[in-house]
Amino acid sequence: MSADLERAYKGARVLVAGGLGFIGSALAHRLVALGAEVAIVDALDPEGGGSEANIADIRSRVRPERADLRDGARVAPLLAGCSHVFNLAGRTSHMGSLADPLADLGANTEAALALLELVRARAPGAAILYASTRQVYGAPERLPVDETHPLHPPDPNAVAKIAGESYHLLYHRLHGLGATVLRLTNVYGPRMRIKDARQNFLGLWVRRVLEGAPVEVWGGTQRRDLAYVDDVVDAFLVAAARGGVAGRAYNVGGAPAVSLAELARLIVAANGGGRIETRDFPPERRAIDIGDYETDDRLFRETTGWSPRVELGDGLARTLEFFRPRLKDYL
Amino acid sequence: MSADLERAYKGARVLVAGGLGFIGSALAHRLVALGAEVAIVDALDPEGGGSEANIADIRSRVRPERADLRDGARVAPLLAGCSHVFNLAGRTSHMGSLADPLADLGANTEAALALLELVRARAPGAAILYASTRQVYGAPERLPVDETHPLHPPDPNAVAKIAGESYHLLYHRLHGLGATVLRLTNVYGPRMRIKDARQNFLGLWVRRVLEGAPVEVWGGTQRRDLAYVDDVVDAFLVAAARGGVAGRAYNVGGAPAVSLAELARLIVAANGGGRIETRDFPPERRAIDIGDYETDDRLFRETTGWSPRVELGDGLARTLEFFRPRLKDYL
Repeated sequence: MSADLERAYKGARVLVAGGLGFIGSALAHRLVALGAEVAIVDALDPEGGGSEANIADIRSRVRPERADLRDGARVAPLLAGCSHVFNLAGRTSHMGSLADPLADLGANTEAALALLELVRARAPGAAILYASTRQVYGAPERLPVDETHPLHPPDPNAVAKIAGESYHLLYHRLHGLGATVLRLTNVYGPRMRIKDARQNFLGLWVRRVLEGAPVEVWGGTQRRDLAYVDDVVDAFLVAAARGGVAGRAYNVGGAPAVSLAELARLIVAANGGGRIETRDFPPERRAIDIGDYETDDRLFRETTGWSPRVELGDGLARTLEFFRPRLKDYL
Repeated sequence: MSADLERAYKGARVLVAGGLGFIGSALAHRLVALGAEVAIVDALDPEGGGSEANIADIRSRVRPERADLRDGARVAPLLAGCSHVFNLAGRTSHMGSLADPLADLGANTEAALALLELVRARAPGAAILYASTRQVYGAPERLPVDETHPLHPPDPNAVAKIAGESYHLLYHRLHGLGATVLRLTNVYGPRMRIKDARQNFLGLWVRRVLEGAPVEVWGGTQRRDLAYVDDVVDAFLVAAARGGVAGRAYNVGGAPAVSLAELARLIVAANGGGRIETRDFPPERRAIDIGDYETDDRLFRETTGWSPRVELGDGLARTLEFFRPRLKDYL
């Protein structure tokens, strides 16, 4: 697969929106390694995971532009000659979307639509990938959840992501854009946001275990599947490199689901020690909690040949290893 | 039913967003007649159907504010003491949404979300009604179309309306707002936009038959159901007056479906004469055309007791009668 990806991306001009963020910067690193010419656009939204630190070691090999995707005058030039556009920009916080649903709509829907319009005008032959979320399904009616599961958005963030997805699928059908949607489960790994739980709860656990503070488990019986960022990056690269996947939304999972209690034990073990504190599930989150979750991503695996390769214990160890010497850069 | 409505609305403070438009102004007339205190907010978006002429005869009995719903400082004061909020604002043109999808998203989704946030803060006990469209279903998989039909948005307008709907249903579930969605079929009647086909094709037919020009039928075999505006106004009034309907999206139809060829004959007959020209369906519209359509609105009828009362021939005659002496005000 790596040789295929090198053929696809060596010398290719690509744009990574949200490229200073967690998944976006991991994608930029990989694209640089594959020999692509990488442009980055990132608004450095304080609610997101973007940071110049995330590209410190590839700074001379990428073109980063600090701009909002709705700022066409700044974004359009980055699309010249572009063959692959990855949209990892946007907000991921469910609680944040309750507090400011209009900003969430702006970042996840309006910005994505503005980028689609620019791609349609400036790079109509490019593949464009949109990062969506398993949150669009809401509390699952059945497990594991495949793409035929009905959409029941439990919070404004999921409403905005569904609209963002729909525009991509529509632009494929109406305008022939090579647009594909990937619905991600919880993603973790180096460069994730760890100063709080805005990207996901695991970021805060990483911080706490490295600071020697107890990992706080709410409830603990809920099951979640987690995807290591390198596997997710591979999914984006494979999807954008292949014809025939466009015009659909695919689930992308990771390691098999575990309970949060089990996950807490795994991260403490990966750290070589630490404490776990279990408390009741906070009532203010119950309204938007989705209960157990497990992804069925067979459609994506069978269509593309992709599969995740990093086991949970290994991924957690790599994540802690990345952050241990860099903790202060990420707080 | 009229006595029930009078009890519900006499002395009530209500806000009609889009109240200078086609359906909004009809609603405002009816609310004034029922003895409500009517405030109107309307941006007079040139792409919409709003006009001061639409409320000329009730001008002294309503408070119209020219403002965008996203302008909280202007809209919030109108919500003081409000018990019923009707959101008839927004854009309806499918072709318009292809030409400017970002403005469509702003008018149909962002503005609606801004209003929801204001209602949540200023009038949390109010009923709020959102006008949506049968376009959310796309090309029907089966006829007639009930609310369990899957959503297949065929154009950006439908994507934006689905997101607008979702926010309303979510605000009911998460914040307890009395929010209800009505999915309208083609609506016609006095004060509709007739200068072009932005609201729907029938507006242009009304204009042409009154000007003595031929009615242009594209294809002609497609079937559509049409709802007379007074019946639709009744549906909004009944839904907002009743408890127990909130948190759902309901179809609201009208007269039984007819072919466009038959409809053209009916409008010419209602006019006492006129010409019909049949031409091929324009290829540029084929991508977003939905084919035949007929509403199944039994859920709304059974839940509320509402039913449409105006037959198609009668509604067309009343429409022509309204516009005949006022044609120049509406071109």
